[in-house]
Amino acid sequence: MVKLNEMRDYVNQKQLDVAYISNFEDIKYFTGFGSDPVERVLALFIFPDAEPFLFAPELEVEAIKESGWKYPVYGYLDHEDPFKLIAKHIRDVNPDPKRFGIEDDNLVISRYQQLQAEFPKADFKTNVAPKVSELRVIKTPYEIEQLDAAGKEADFAFKVGFETAKAGKTEAEVAAEIEYQEKIRGVMNMSFDTLVQTGPHAAEPHGATDMNQIKNDNLLLFDLGTVHNGYISDASRTVAVGDKIPAKQKEIYDVVLEAQLAAQSAAKPGIRAEELDAIARNIIDKAGYGKYFIHRLGHGMGMSEHEFPSIMEGNQMVLKEGMCFSIEPGIYIPGVAGVRIEDCIHLTKDGNEPFTHTSKELRYV
Amino acid sequence: MVKLNEMRDYVNQKQLDVAYISNFEDIKYFTGFGSDPVERVLALFIFPDAEPFLFAPELEVEAIKESGWKYPVYGYLDHEDPFKLIAKHIRDVNPDPKRFGIEDDNLVISRYQQLQAEFPKADFKTNVAPKVSELRVIKTPYEIEQLDAAGKEADFAFKVGFETAKAGKTEAEVAAEIEYQEKIRGVMNMSFDTLVQTGPHAAEPHGATDMNQIKNDNLLLFDLGTVHNGYISDASRTVAVGDKIPAKQKEIYDVVLEAQLAAQSAAKPGIRAEELDAIARNIIDKAGYGKYFIHRLGHGMGMSEHEFPSIMEGNQMVLKEGMCFSIEPGIYIPGVAGVRIEDCIHLTKDGNEPFTHTSKELRYV
Repeated sequence: MVKLNEMRDYVNQKQLDVAYISNFEDIKYFTGFGSDPVERVLALFIFPDAEPFLFAPELEVEAIKESGWKYPVYGYLDHEDPFKLIAKHIRDVNPDPKRFGIEDDNLVISRYQQLQAEFPKADFKTNVAPKVSELRVIKTPYEIEQLDAAGKEADFAFKVGFETAKAGKTEAEVAAEIEYQEKIRGVMNMSFDTLVQTGPHAAEPHGATDMNQIKNDNLLLFDLGTVHNGYISDASRTVAVGDKIPAKQKEIYDVVLEAQLAAQSAAKPGIRAEELDAIARNIIDKAGYGKYFIHRLGHGMGMSEHEFPSIMEGNQMVLKEGMCFSIEPGIYIPGVAGVRIEDCIHLTKDGNEPFTHTSKELRYV
Repeated sequence: MVKLNEMRDYVNQKQLDVAYISNFEDIKYFTGFGSDPVERVLALFIFPDAEPFLFAPELEVEAIKESGWKYPVYGYLDHEDPFKLIAKHIRDVNPDPKRFGIEDDNLVISRYQQLQAEFPKADFKTNVAPKVSELRVIKTPYEIEQLDAAGKEADFAFKVGFETAKAGKTEAEVAAEIEYQEKIRGVMNMSFDTLVQTGPHAAEPHGATDMNQIKNDNLLLFDLGTVHNGYISDASRTVAVGDKIPAKQKEIYDVVLEAQLAAQSAAKPGIRAEELDAIARNIIDKAGYGKYFIHRLGHGMGMSEHEFPSIMEGNQMVLKEGMCFSIEPGIYIPGVAGVRIEDCIHLTKDGNEPFTHTSKELRYV
């Protein structure tokens, strides 16, 4: 349970009668219980001066109680109308709520309409999502600890990957071995499907691990992460297979590494997100590869790899202590190779610390 | 590309100027290209009498072109405003669109508002999601083929699981071995994290594989599936570890099996979803275990395990040829054991065919 009291204070201060938290990650953040309900309804209701409650599919109720959630939880069965029940539980707390806060960037139109139908006179104009983001973007020491632990497992995954990868194996075999070794030591979830891409295949930054055979004298890209207590790691390394690689591939490796190190060493409180992006991008531009760096420098991370702050052109957000994000420049030349080097970091008082520590010098496996 | 023309005909018939498909699974269905864009925007626009177009993050554009999509695709960079670009591309097709169709059950409020701001005079009242569901719920022969192939891989996964499971191993080791063996033969994605639950742990139907040690004379539950060309399998088996199990566990196994077989043999066009649920539920109720069967009988499936039709109390939908869904009764007695037996099936002209063929007789491993 992180910052639930801060959120309640905000609900109070904004004179809302109730805030409806619909994003399951936000629910996990505030309650400690997280589960993607997919088409079912999982909802957290926060009141200015009463206990919050969770509303969940009946088959999650036991797990919620066991998770340490100390406030009420109400379940519903698949054939019941969740919003009728939600309305009843809200009215038990406040018979006539007039002002609702909702998450505009998460709540879908049909659910909004169902809730509105139960409270036809209420005002739903307050979007509480920005406040939730503002809370979530600054990680607490507890959260940094979880992210550090997840980072250690990503380092272990690289170790397994580097030991396993060699010419003749498939990308799939290497990824499978990494995930197998993680799982048997109790790391039940990867942050995302482990990415292993060889040679030109790595030039598709959103491609997937496949049955391509690893060849000597070629680059091999890893992008992977693990989940620890609901917090993720996310890191990329590109290595050389065999004992040499073409000069062009060495050149783009060196450019990406220079860009990554420059941005990472510049990351500290006070710099703007777009400035950090520009530091890496200018290095790649000057080396003549700007058009092959086709994504932002980084993304915020914590419970997922899709958090704030976004480290990109146009984002003038001033970065602060406790923010966590990736620094992952890449050069992707179709038909030739792809290189990406990535650490996720958290900003400290006057600098930053990475969550992963695997060397970024070019390694020959 | 499935039924894109049917959807265009519908747009025409409803006199819409454009339909905005925002659900990435629906986009995959209509276009053949599918990727969860998470916080980025992936959108399909369908017009009554012009070519549809895809709008996607720039780093997906190459993959979309390679996927066989033969209509325009427009990319955007992370720092660009996607809805300004979308508005421009829509106006290039129709300078003054008056009626939009949207997916109410997928489109979030903030995106709806951004689109509306670009077309302040347009009407957004038409929800096209029910039509998309109506198309998707009846699988084509192509789709059945993919689901059959995914089912074969689930049968392979059970084989690996049954061979691997024995007293002393952890749930995690068995799940890891299944996923490893699938991945190295080219099955890159499981439908969901492979579930292996031993003894009383299986009484948590939404629990997860963990480090629990498998013990003799205990039930062991598997729930797993694979992805083939974007179509999934999903099946559950419960087996006995060792050469005997307590009479109570054998009894609940027999009840669940009877319920599963009865519902599966009754599944054919013309029956209502709730009737099928009742067939299984009555058997479990009569045996005295009704209160331990705490979920619906089944869910629709195809590209995911969260499709229509939902096989549950209150759903009066008449089932038709081509519909695909799970039949998965379960009994979960806290502290004792959990049993679930599940096949997914497709309705044929006068009956059904399962996608998985692993025996459902109680197996001792």
